[in-house]
This record gives sequence, C-alpha cells and structure tokens, in this order.
Amino acid sequence: MVKLAIDIMGGDYAPLEIIKGVKLALERFSDIELVLFGDEKIIKEHLGEHERVKIVNAPEKIDMGEKDPIGEIRRNHNTSLVKAFQAVKDKEVDGVVTAGPTQGVVTAAHLIIRRIKGMKRTALCPVLPNLGGKHRLLLDVGANLELRSEHLLQLAQYASIYLREVQGIEKPLVGLMNIGTEEGKGREVEKEAYALLKNNPNINFYGNIEGKDIFRTECDIIITDGFSGNLVMKTCEGVALAVGKFFKEEINKSIFRKIGYLFLNKVFKNFKKTLSADEIGGAHLFGVDGIVVKAHGSSDAYAFSNAINQARLAVKGEIIEKMKKIIEEEGNNLNDEW
Amino acid sequence: MVKLAIDIMGGDYAPLEIIKGVKLALERFSDIELVLFGDEKIIKEHLGEHERVKIVNAPEKIDMGEKDPIGEIRRNHNTSLVKAFQAVKDKEVDGVVTAGPTQGVVTAAHLIIRRIKGMKRTALCPVLPNLGGKHRLLLDVGANLELRSEHLLQLAQYASIYLREVQGIEKPLVGLMNIGTEEGKGREVEKEAYALLKNNPNINFYGNIEGKDIFRTECDIIITDGFSGNLVMKTCEGVALAVGKFFKEEINKSIFRKIGYLFLNKVFKNFKKTLSADEIGGAHLFGVDGIVVKAHGSSDAYAFSNAINQARLAVKGEIIEKMKKIIEEEGNNLNDEW
Repeated sequence: MVKLAIDIMGGDYAPLEIIKGVKLALERFSDIELVLFGDEKIIKEHLGEHERVKIVNAPEKIDMGEKDPIGEIRRNHNTSLVKAFQAVKDKEVDGVVTAGPTQGVVTAAHLIIRRIKGMKRTALCPVLPNLGGKHRLLLDVGANLELRSEHLLQLAQYASIYLREVQGIEKPLVGLMNIGTEEGKGREVEKEAYALLKNNPNINFYGNIEGKDIFRTECDIIITDGFSGNLVMKTCEGVALAVGKFFKEEINKSIFRKIGYLFLNKVFKNFKKTLSADEIGGAHLFGVDGIVVKAHGSSDAYAFSNAINQARLAVKGEIIEKMKKIIEEEGNNLNDEW
Repeated sequence: MVKLAIDIMGGDYAPLEIIKGVKLALERFSDIELVLFGDEKIIKEHLGEHERVKIVNAPEKIDMGEKDPIGEIRRNHNTSLVKAFQAVKDKEVDGVVTAGPTQGVVTAAHLIIRRIKGMKRTALCPVLPNLGGKHRLLLDVGANLELRSEHLLQLAQYASIYLREVQGIEKPLVGLMNIGTEEGKGREVEKEAYALLKNNPNINFYGNIEGKDIFRTECDIIITDGFSGNLVMKTCEGVALAVGKFFKEEINKSIFRKIGYLFLNKVFKNFKKTLSADEIGGAHLFGVDGIVVKAHGSSDAYAFSNAINQARLAVKGEIIEKMKKIIEEEGNNLNDEW
C-alpha cells in the first residue's frame, strides 16, 4: 500500500473539487491509502466513509493570495498544508499531494520535511506538454533562482532516477538549457555543469539545448536554474495563450472561416488538451526527504487524481532510497579524492 | 541623406539576395546612400551603376559556420564585415547593416566601432512578433550573458529613446522580465534593477512581467540579461515551431480536416507571416557608437530591405546623440551625488 497525505484545502476549487479528485483516485488506484487534511465536516459530507481513508481535521488554509506564505507557514502550524507536510516528516505517510500555492509548498517542504541528507538543493519539476512527440521534464522552475553546477548535477541525477523508476526509461537523456549548442557556450555555471554532466556515470548527457529545441529535442530531462526554468516554462505558456487568442480572433473574422473551424474543431480541441496541465497532474518537488507533488492551482478532480497518481508512482519507484544510495556513493568518492 | 554601410557577403543567401535587397531599399527609400562592401564584380553584374551607391571591393566573408568568429575578426581585416564596420568607425557612414553571424557582429562592433563613451554595456535587441496587438522590444538577447542592474537601466534608457524617436511612442513602457509580478521577486539583480528603473526620470516603468505575459503586456520594452533574453526569445521560436508542426500533422490525418484547412488557409498563412522575422528586418545592437542592424541570417531581399529601413530610421532619429546627452546628464548627477 502507498500511503499519501492529501491537502484538501489547497487549490482554486478546494475543497469540493479536491474531494472529488480523492474519490476518483480511490476508484482508479486500489493500492493507495490516503490521509486527508482538511475540514472534517465537509469531507465527511461529500466523501462519506472509506476504508482506505483517514481524516485529520484541519479546516484552516493558506490563502492563494497570501502575500507572505513563508511567514504564514512559520506562524500558523494548524493549516491543512502544514499538517499534511508534518505527516510526511513523521513518516506516517510516504508523500503528500497539494494544490496549494507554490511558494508555500516549497517553503513547507524545506522547513518541515527538509532536504534529503547530502542533497544540496531542491527543484520544482513540472512535466512539459507533449507538443513534440514526448513528455519532458524541466527543472528547476523556481525552487532555487540560482544554482551552482554541482547542484545541477545532483538534480539531474535525481530526475534520471525518477524517469527510470517511474516511466521505465532506462537511460534518460539529459540536456543542459543554454544559449547555443556547442560546448563552451553560456555562463560559467553552464560551462562547469557541462563538464560535470558529461563525466558523471549516472547521467546520460546529450549536451546543450536551446530554447527553440525544447519541443523537438530527444532529451527526456532539461536542466537549468530556477530563474531560467521559470522564464522558459512561463514563456511556453505565454506563446500558447497568444497563439490560441490569435486563431480565435482570426477565425471570428468571417463566416467562411467559422465554417472551416467546424471541420477542424477536433484539431483545436486536441491542441488545447495537449497544452492542458490536467493530463499530467502536477510538478514534483525533487530533493526533499519524502515525495511532494504540487498539483496545479486550478486543478479539477481529474487533474488532482492524476497528481495523486504521480506521487503514487514515485513512492512505488522508491526514488528517494535510490537517490540516497547515489549520494552515499558519490560522497565516498569525494572523500577518496579530496 | 542617410549614409549606410552594407555587408553584401553576410547571410545564408548572400550575395545575390542581399544585392536584391539593396536594390529594393534604393527604390523604397530615396533618402539613403549606400556603401556596399563585397565582391565588386558580382555587385556590378547584378546591381549595375547607381548614383546613390558606392562599392568597396571586399570579396572575403566570415563563414556562418565559423567556429571562432572572434578570432577570425581579429586576424582577418579584409572581410566585408570588418571593412563595413570600419567605415562606421571612420565616420564615413552613420550605420551598418549585415546578415552575418551574430557573434561576429557583436564582436566586430565592440572591437572596431566600440561602445558609446559612458555606455557600460551593449545589447542585442530584436523586435518580438506582433502576436498580441503590438510589437515589443526584447533586450538583451545575447550580447552580454550577465548584466548588472545599472547596465539594465542604461539599456532600458537607450531602448526608450529608440522607440520615442523611431516609432513616435512618447513614453515607452518598460517591463522587467521576472519570475513573478510583485516587487521583491527575482534574484538580487532584478531587485536592484526594479528600484533603479522605478526611480529614473527617463524611464516609464511598468514593473515586473512574467514569461506568460510577454505577448499580452502593455509594455513596449522588455528588459533582461542576455542569457535570460536569449532563452525567452528562442523558446518563443520553439513553441511556434512546435505548434506549426502540431497543426500540420493533425490536419494531415484526414480528408475532412484537409477540407477545413482550405477554409482556414488564410488564417494559417497570417499566423506564419506574423511570426516571420522578414517583416521586421533585424535586431539592433544598442550601445555602440554607430547604428548597427543585424538582419536575420536567412534574410531574403524584402527582409533585408526592411533591415536597411530600421537602420535608416535609427539614424534619422539621432538616437545615439540623444543617448549621449542622457549619459552626460546622469554622469553629472553622479558626480554631484558621489
């Protein structure tokens, strides 16, 4: 059984849509046991009793618009988010899923669950939409705005383990986000990271990749610092939004075009679906000592059940244990060398 | 008369397409005089004599695939690019237009023309496609991978002058590329730049903008360092490419959809045209003591004539003189304060 804590109060459509997501996940996956943190009365009313569910009453929530989520997490230990994360820390569960605010999730993970021993940084890792033949991981997109080359290496190792154990990709291909493809391009951090990634036995390194290649590269993992990754991820979103708006406006310009739209209706629907975060579920927070999945704030029930599945697969893949082993091995190597 | 140097040998379709572009520009703009640097024989054969044209024989070129354009520029002073840039330095012309390799252009501008006195950094500044109601400038996209806050301020001032004098936008709105919209977001450099931009009398500051807003923001100018700007620009290209491919593949899946495409043919053509760099012409290199326009490597005659027009308008707007005045004023202020 995979045991997961669920933050019922986080997300734009919480708690009802999250409760529906929990219901759906319980139907879809028979090997999960869930501990729900939220308003007990509402949960009982909408979910009823379930043999694989435990409820912990925690009706307080962190507001999505909270200006100081870090302070809020330090001050108030009674929110559903903090209590759910505490359950991971106390090893009552193997992981946690929440649609709460990103900054709150990153902060709570650091303050409560804490990093894996020997893991130098964490990373927020979403899955990019399958716009060019496959899904790809992009990290970091904002947990750490600046990262050193050795941090990038460790995070790439973690992401490689994740894809191997969860997706069954034997040797995930890692690309380094850069401004040109040749070795020697980029800032000092990219030059150093290139050398580290190239020479590490646990990394299948492709080389540098540019922004124009992110949806056509063979790479499974794209690694960069949190500032750059955030810009890239949100730029993808921005272009997709603008393209959607462009087509809508152009098509509305004539009856003739609207007729054409009827023929291509399915194509535009597929386009929208491809770009939707719902199919994926959420972003992992790699590097803390427990599985943390941050579902999209606007998650509906289906999206949230997918986020639960992401956490489930990560627990089953025992990726944290496997990363700990690499850290130990490389730690030993470092001791030998230095 | 606006006097411009033209590098005839740079670009994927040089020299013939560039010569055609020159011809077209001479027809379109009666107030330009051009000095062409390239293979005299070929130019004479394809252009003939023209009263507003002077030819300087310079048949050697910098290869687009040149691995070490910087070394090449230092070693070989006979290339069309180097000679054209030397003409700017020697004040024989007011500016230069080339479709040669970006790194070569940036290097030649620094080594030969040099920065405006008091200007601390340069920036490559393309115009973003008009995907959301207006054209916007994005800078820097690669002249300097790392920039300090005072560099960002100066470059924003330069870009503001450019839009005011060339596009007639009285107070161009400047946005700072960041990972969130609130003040206080970002790395140290963004936090410092926010304060500088907000308090400078020559800047109409909007605040932070995120990647998802670049095609819907009211901002006219988006400012960031060369590493980030390059990622953002190329990510836009990557998403647009992937979207184009997606629609093509989806439409080809059935006859029914192909019929729909016939109705929407014009819409897709407009989409392609909107994203094409040809309409714009090229990217400016801001900050050197002469107008430098780098046309797209794949420029055809029309695109190149547009790049010539960009240089022409910048010269007519006397933007370098106006930037020099600001540098002088702020230099005086600095002397007063410190």
